[in-house]
Amino acid sequence: MTVKEKGLLHELREALKSHQVTTNATVLEQHGKDESYHHPFSPDIVVFPENAEEVSKIVKLAGAYNTPIIPFGLGTSLEGHVIPYEKGISIDFSQMNKILEIREKDFLVRVQPGVTRSQLNKELKKYGLFFSVDPGADATLGGMAATNASGTTSVKYGVMRDQVRNLEVVLASGEIIHTGNLAQKSSSGYNLNHLFVGSEGTLGCFTELTLRVYGIPEHILAARAFFPHIDDAVEAVVSILQAGIPVARVELVDDASMKQVNLFSDTDYIEKPTLFLEFHGNEAGLKQDVAFMEEIVSDHGCEAIHFEEDQAARNKLWDARHNLAYAYIHGNPGKKMMVTDVCVPISELSGAIRAARQKLDELKLTGGILGHVGDGNYHALVMLDLTDREEVQKAEVFNEQIVEYALERNGTCTGEHGVGAGKMKYQEREHGGALQVMKNIKDALDPSGLLNPNKLIRKAKGEEE
Amino acid sequence: MTVKEKGLLHELREALKSHQVTTNATVLEQHGKDESYHHPFSPDIVVFPENAEEVSKIVKLAGAYNTPIIPFGLGTSLEGHVIPYEKGISIDFSQMNKILEIREKDFLVRVQPGVTRSQLNKELKKYGLFFSVDPGADATLGGMAATNASGTTSVKYGVMRDQVRNLEVVLASGEIIHTGNLAQKSSSGYNLNHLFVGSEGTLGCFTELTLRVYGIPEHILAARAFFPHIDDAVEAVVSILQAGIPVARVELVDDASMKQVNLFSDTDYIEKPTLFLEFHGNEAGLKQDVAFMEEIVSDHGCEAIHFEEDQAARNKLWDARHNLAYAYIHGNPGKKMMVTDVCVPISELSGAIRAARQKLDELKLTGGILGHVGDGNYHALVMLDLTDREEVQKAEVFNEQIVEYALERNGTCTGEHGVGAGKMKYQEREHGGALQVMKNIKDALDPSGLLNPNKLIRKAKGEEE
Repeated sequence: MTVKEKGLLHELREALKSHQVTTNATVLEQHGKDESYHHPFSPDIVVFPENAEEVSKIVKLAGAYNTPIIPFGLGTSLEGHVIPYEKGISIDFSQMNKILEIREKDFLVRVQPGVTRSQLNKELKKYGLFFSVDPGADATLGGMAATNASGTTSVKYGVMRDQVRNLEVVLASGEIIHTGNLAQKSSSGYNLNHLFVGSEGTLGCFTELTLRVYGIPEHILAARAFFPHIDDAVEAVVSILQAGIPVARVELVDDASMKQVNLFSDTDYIEKPTLFLEFHGNEAGLKQDVAFMEEIVSDHGCEAIHFEEDQAARNKLWDARHNLAYAYIHGNPGKKMMVTDVCVPISELSGAIRAARQKLDELKLTGGILGHVGDGNYHALVMLDLTDREEVQKAEVFNEQIVEYALERNGTCTGEHGVGAGKMKYQEREHGGALQVMKNIKDALDPSGLLNPNKLIRKAKGEEE
Repeated sequence: MTVKEKGLLHELREALKSHQVTTNATVLEQHGKDESYHHPFSPDIVVFPENAEEVSKIVKLAGAYNTPIIPFGLGTSLEGHVIPYEKGISIDFSQMNKILEIREKDFLVRVQPGVTRSQLNKELKKYGLFFSVDPGADATLGGMAATNASGTTSVKYGVMRDQVRNLEVVLASGEIIHTGNLAQKSSSGYNLNHLFVGSEGTLGCFTELTLRVYGIPEHILAARAFFPHIDDAVEAVVSILQAGIPVARVELVDDASMKQVNLFSDTDYIEKPTLFLEFHGNEAGLKQDVAFMEEIVSDHGCEAIHFEEDQAARNKLWDARHNLAYAYIHGNPGKKMMVTDVCVPISELSGAIRAARQKLDELKLTGGILGHVGDGNYHALVMLDLTDREEVQKAEVFNEQIVEYALERNGTCTGEHGVGAGKMKYQEREHGGALQVMKNIKDALDPSGLLNPNKLIRKAKGEEE
């Protein structure tokens, strides 16, 4: 530890309570990794603030010592977002985990950033409400806002960005601002809510979030539809969307992934390409929607549909889907996960998935295809032995080919996981001249470049990791 | 005309075709006003570009001559957005009015900024599609994106910001960038789409927009519900929303405004506080929703509901609603319109409208209350004799009180009209420290401050209009 680091550590301990600041090797290691294949790298210090004022103090001290800071939720990111490759202070938000206010009548909640989505939903259930965004991980809401996460219900309820009404943010200067208000819509000033959502800790630290929630639907019906071939399943989805059926969830799981589901989740689902569907609405409307959907999937060769009406069976179905990445990890001990995350216009989805599946087979990689096909967003999930250089290289080429395919068709390199460290190399190709606008914004809001440096926006002087 | 202006004019005429550049007094005057009470002020020059390259040339020349530029659609703004109080070049986008591409299967369209919403909808109808955002004016889509416009359907389909997938933007430097892609969702880079939407020409000029469109619903049912008192109508809306009925439109029109509707639109609607409602869905679901809605409005004292099932009657109903501002203008010759535009959390809506109605009566101003109450956004519309100083002052105090009421309850000073010149004075109060962040962004993207100067963001050196 350098003299500078010692000085910073001393000042942090003065500013916070002593148990809130640590250099314990195990804790540092825990804050040096995420759930992906990106190589770990430990921070110098981990701090556990309890409120915005403490976060402000930390950020000011980091500025005084010219030290990077990296916000940390639960470390469930998939592109190395939380890994402090430039060293510095990891700010762990786990102590800021209170649900502060439920404005039932306004369908709004105010939470601290360390609250997880399941924690919030458990509380909301008492009010007949739910929070819609559901990535696979039980991530923190602060982390989900930082990456603009989404999930199985985004096709109906939108992504994280659509739910954020207001953020309390600690800026690089240590100043605390609010980015929005409680109104349903606003045309007042630049839209800072949507700029900060998805900024991955590079523009400020979130210390409070006001989020939109929804009433639990009157009726919910879930279904699993099996198809002979993945192409049929994808084309059925495209037809369902184009028919205007208001589906609440429509998830694709290929046959390889259905095997993992059954192994991990104690289910005995048919191991064929499957659509997991859900419909929300009133009873009569839902019946009509489902009948129309059945017609469409049958036209696309659907072999069988199983409906799940009661809540326990529905929960089992969606838990199985949510745990799919963990199923792969569990089924491949010692291996690490690489997940592609492109999103394409819906008319390009069939072709994109067909090409990905073919390449996955050609390269003989272990993995499967799954995803939020209602949004045009799919994942190819590959399990890697990081000591096998050839396998890692093959997987990287595979990922690059998938991204190139999507970008050629005006899609995006990341539908929901974010840029982090892993997707920076595609930013120039995807954004062109707009990347310089992003850099100008970063420089304007973080002039010293200490907020999660070298993530999302590459540093100027060739200082890349 | 100064020597500098002559030089600029000469160079503009060299860069464009001669009929695309004018200093004709009538044309200047037309580009020096909008539809509001804000006092007119003419630009020096009006230009009519035909493509992005020409816009880029204009912006570069303006930069070279240190001359402001003001994008102009149809001049339907309500807060002086398009009025060139700092003089300069008004860029009229009326010649860029082509629908460039309809990606039917992707529910996307690509248009030039001068296309109007009715022009787009006329074309989309051939494909069974529609564009949802419908402000009262038949505004241009470029202008609607610039102010983040919304309308009667935003309660279901969202505001302008929710529809914009990609923008082609000419920056202050003259460089042409793209802010998005065609994917349904993206977590790649900072969200420039939503930053540029609502930026009111202060960050760049839009030269192309890719917008989300929707399938025309299988069934549509419109209704007018009459209430003895405005409070009952508002409380009925709050109950409908809280019951989770997926209403597609719910508009409040008070009794004073119903009189204007009948005078202007050749209707004989009952002149009582009225909700204009619409439901979209499948036949069975819609029937159940409407039955539930009828129960709720009846609990709130609704005196009668008239349903409009056929398209002609529905169109008449919504045309009457859309033309309400014009009805007031027509009914008050020589007067100018001031429209308040706050948006409040839905739980605060009853109180806000009650307070506004009381003040309007106390002050004996000519006007009414109407608005998009499903979003918590309502307008008090006041007709002013601008030569009557006392009346104007009363109206200004009225507007300020309404804004103050909304801001005290965490609402916003503008739900959909934007800041322009008229709402700048509330920005500090509404945004606090976040206003400096907005200023930093403005400075980073428009360092010379020539893009629609002194709108949305106040100029630094006390150079306010």
